[in-house]
Amino acid sequence: LSDALTIAVDAMGGDHAPQQIVAGAVRFVRSDSPDAAGVGLQLVGDPEAIHACLKAEGIDAHPRLSIVPASQVIGMDEHPLESVRKKPDSSIVVCAKRVKSGEADATMSAGNTGACLVAAMMIIERLPEISRPPIATFMPRHDGLATMVVDGGANVDCQPSHLADFALLGSLYMQTVLGIANPRVALLANGEEESKGDDLVKRTRPLLQALPINFIGNVEGNTAFEDYADVAVCDGFAGNVALKTAEGMGSLCLSILESFPEAAAAMQAVRRRVDWAEYGGAPLLGINGVSIIAHGRSNARAAETALLVAARTTRSGYVAAVKVALEGRVS
Amino acid sequence: LSDALTIAVDAMGGDHAPQQIVAGAVRFVRSDSPDAAGVGLQLVGDPEAIHACLKAEGIDAHPRLSIVPASQVIGMDEHPLESVRKKPDSSIVVCAKRVKSGEADATMSAGNTGACLVAAMMIIERLPEISRPPIATFMPRHDGLATMVVDGGANVDCQPSHLADFALLGSLYMQTVLGIANPRVALLANGEEESKGDDLVKRTRPLLQALPINFIGNVEGNTAFEDYADVAVCDGFAGNVALKTAEGMGSLCLSILESFPEAAAAMQAVRRRVDWAEYGGAPLLGINGVSIIAHGRSNARAAETALLVAARTTRSGYVAAVKVALEGRVS
Repeated sequence: LSDALTIAVDAMGGDHAPQQIVAGAVRFVRSDSPDAAGVGLQLVGDPEAIHACLKAEGIDAHPRLSIVPASQVIGMDEHPLESVRKKPDSSIVVCAKRVKSGEADATMSAGNTGACLVAAMMIIERLPEISRPPIATFMPRHDGLATMVVDGGANVDCQPSHLADFALLGSLYMQTVLGIANPRVALLANGEEESKGDDLVKRTRPLLQALPINFIGNVEGNTAFEDYADVAVCDGFAGNVALKTAEGMGSLCLSILESFPEAAAAMQAVRRRVDWAEYGGAPLLGINGVSIIAHGRSNARAAETALLVAARTTRSGYVAAVKVALEGRVS
Repeated sequence: LSDALTIAVDAMGGDHAPQQIVAGAVRFVRSDSPDAAGVGLQLVGDPEAIHACLKAEGIDAHPRLSIVPASQVIGMDEHPLESVRKKPDSSIVVCAKRVKSGEADATMSAGNTGACLVAAMMIIERLPEISRPPIATFMPRHDGLATMVVDGGANVDCQPSHLADFALLGSLYMQTVLGIANPRVALLANGEEESKGDDLVKRTRPLLQALPINFIGNVEGNTAFEDYADVAVCDGFAGNVALKTAEGMGSLCLSILESFPEAAAAMQAVRRRVDWAEYGGAPLLGINGVSIIAHGRSNARAAETALLVAARTTRSGYVAAVKVALEGRVS
């Protein structure tokens, strides 16, 4: 198959690993989504544990599932840099190495986010022009689509040039992977007027105006949920505050709905949107490969979704498109 | 009456002024809340328009309602500093002057927030030790109480010393006005671990540790909705992003609920919490008087609530308590 892909799956990462991650991988190979078609998965981790999980799913062997041994596991609370250095045979590190060597086209992990970032930067490596790879996260929108918030939390204390990179990387993602023509890119700020924003936002504005993107000005925390912007650019501190606050408000709404039994169907509908964070799969942008970070709480469905994101991102040729765009950039 | 208070009400400020503001004032003087007892209101603005609104509420004269003429109005989108300077007889400026002169004990406005801030700083004046008065806003919580987010949007590009002021002012407010003993004060950050935070958060931490407050470390955007912290300290950029994002997520939940007729009661319950921003009344802290900023969309109930906040804040002796605390501060 000319479009055969392989994804290295961190089977040991996440609160419910390996069971739910392996179950998600099984869902993926059984899925009839065109994104999953022909994609092979390498389950990276403790072979015995993975095998037991596969058995529990009723699978002894599958042509699109293989096991790649990794003898170490990086815990959810371990120090990112230290753990990546000290655990060269950990599932996160082995996954990154397979992408680097070309043995896999992409990797997906629900494990320690910081360690995934460090492994991606140290092993898969940044694209030369990108000093701070951001995490692309998504905010659910009234129109059923989503607004990308980039950076969702990887980088605090950013410079305008970093935010300009986030804008370019995010715009290309929406275009290449999600098929949105001419995506609207905005700066997340404390008001929509041009006078609004902190020093970082104000100094970033001229850089975004000079980029070959559809820069539309500022977007506010509330309009990020509307059909107003496709990409909301911010540093990882503001991005994290926005995403966590949205999560908190969503969970408050759900907890109120719980006391109304007649609203069960409505609650399910709300939950599907509110739990978006757990089901998205956040691509790490600006590295020389595809690395998808799933929520630590990922269950089988979330792992499956993150794998679909990994497959779609890889097939779209996103990384190659970024390289072309960066080559053409006046620096 | 030894506890007789007077509040100068900006009758002309807000999207639904003067009708809804005057109606809110009428609700206030008719309210049986102990906070409203004995409080007189000065309705500041166009006398004819205010009188017409009072008539529409069935009131010709009321012992606790008076009208104070102001010939100018600052529009919602006017430049704050310029408009305050150029419109000395605007309702916002006249309200501030009455607090300054002692003719009123407090002021409340649903008008141009920036102009209210400027008027408060230029006319009522900052307390000498406070360089950047913050707006105290509130996030609804699972336990039915609320977490103060300070600064909610008045100051971007803050220094650690400003955040320390916000922390002290916020802690005293929760204690003095809301009766919370030993309020838990936290820094809003991108993680609860001490290693998390941007440069501002990290440099602010030692200052908060040195203050006579109950500093508990970091709070995240989602835990701000839990019974975890009483005051979340941040610069006005992050505070605005958090509040607006919470608003956006709340309105997304409500719009989903709309398509479930059987969930009408549940939706009402959610709306009561989600619309909190419109009903809170945000106190401006660190000035030499009481100034409450209401939401621009305020209806009569929101105006009434903001007036109750103004009365409660004044009666609590908050400003005097702040002065005592600042005098005792090692600077």
